[in-house]
Amino acid sequence: MGRWEPDAAGRLREAAMALYTEQGYDGTTVAQIADRAGVTARTFFRHFADKREVLFAGSEELQHRMVAALAAAPPAAGPMDAIATGLLAGTDLFSGRRDYARRRQAVIAANPELREREFIKMAALATALTDALRDRGVAVGIAALAAETGVAVFRVAFDRWVTAPEDPDLSEITRATITDLAGLTT
Amino acid sequence: MGRWEPDAAGRLREAAMALYTEQGYDGTTVAQIADRAGVTARTFFRHFADKREVLFAGSEELQHRMVAALAAAPPAAGPMDAIATGLLAGTDLFSGRRDYARRRQAVIAANPELREREFIKMAALATALTDALRDRGVAVGIAALAAETGVAVFRVAFDRWVTAPEDPDLSEITRATITDLAGLTT
Repeated sequence: MGRWEPDAAGRLREAAMALYTEQGYDGTTVAQIADRAGVTARTFFRHFADKREVLFAGSEELQHRMVAALAAAPPAAGPMDAIATGLLAGTDLFSGRRDYARRRQAVIAANPELREREFIKMAALATALTDALRDRGVAVGIAALAAETGVAVFRVAFDRWVTAPEDPDLSEITRATITDLAGLTT
Repeated sequence: MGRWEPDAAGRLREAAMALYTEQGYDGTTVAQIADRAGVTARTFFRHFADKREVLFAGSEELQHRMVAALAAAPPAAGPMDAIATGLLAGTDLFSGRRDYARRRQAVIAANPELREREFIKMAALATALTDALRDRGVAVGIAALAAETGVAVFRVAFDRWVTAPEDPDLSEITRATITDLAGLTT
């Protein structure tokens, strides 16, 4: 990235989201996104593989952070505490980005191909968290249960955050959702 | 269905699964499935919309049973108990069908389009269970959390059942998974 393109990735993300919201995902081209962001298509492709990846590039970073935090949880932490540590480490990524997250969710909800992609990303996250728990010595059946439940908690917390009337902190909401789950299952 | 076609749907399902396993899902045609089952393609289409629906026709019945049982749970049952009632009512459908379920899972795992379809069915199930809980007066955030967690439990229980060395009862495994979850979250 040249120094004449400060935060081109961020500008491309904003431009893409604006166009997806205005004219729909299907009707938007990479050329239009690059144009709106004031960069060339070549610059677009330096940051994203295609117009879909503008929406999903953050998922890998999210998974990476959650897995790293889970792996670094104290050895004495039980599976669900380790999962909670992982989930909470991921919430930082969304700080100050609620408006973007809300628009992203609306674009994805309107498009079957994008919904499917989102499901696959969440399934991959559950698998990665399962593997990270197994690396801590958790039995496979329990690891999968804790990881799948953790992803369900994260998705519900994320929905609560995006739809909340005020602008609360995602990590607070995630903590509250974990507490709600404990209340539900006892 | 004519009387010379006893259980044509069942035979078509078995024929489809055999062909999907032998030669792959993509390489199998409706004509081949009908031929193997000893019926005409016209009979196939009287039972299934296409070759994909052979694998997913049961999902609607599963969702219907779970929602009906959840709705009929005693009014005093909490959200997670109502979800458990729903999940357990669905397990009857799989009685004596573990071998079919195992082959179905292998076929789906090998094909991205089928995996996506399965994700969508599971998401639809979570939404249906959420709505059924809301009809019982459960707050939306709690209803979604209980339903998403319930679907996670069911998927994990189903995996445990399919991969178990012996041939255990899916309802027993589902009960054990619900117990495991309670242990994990407290």
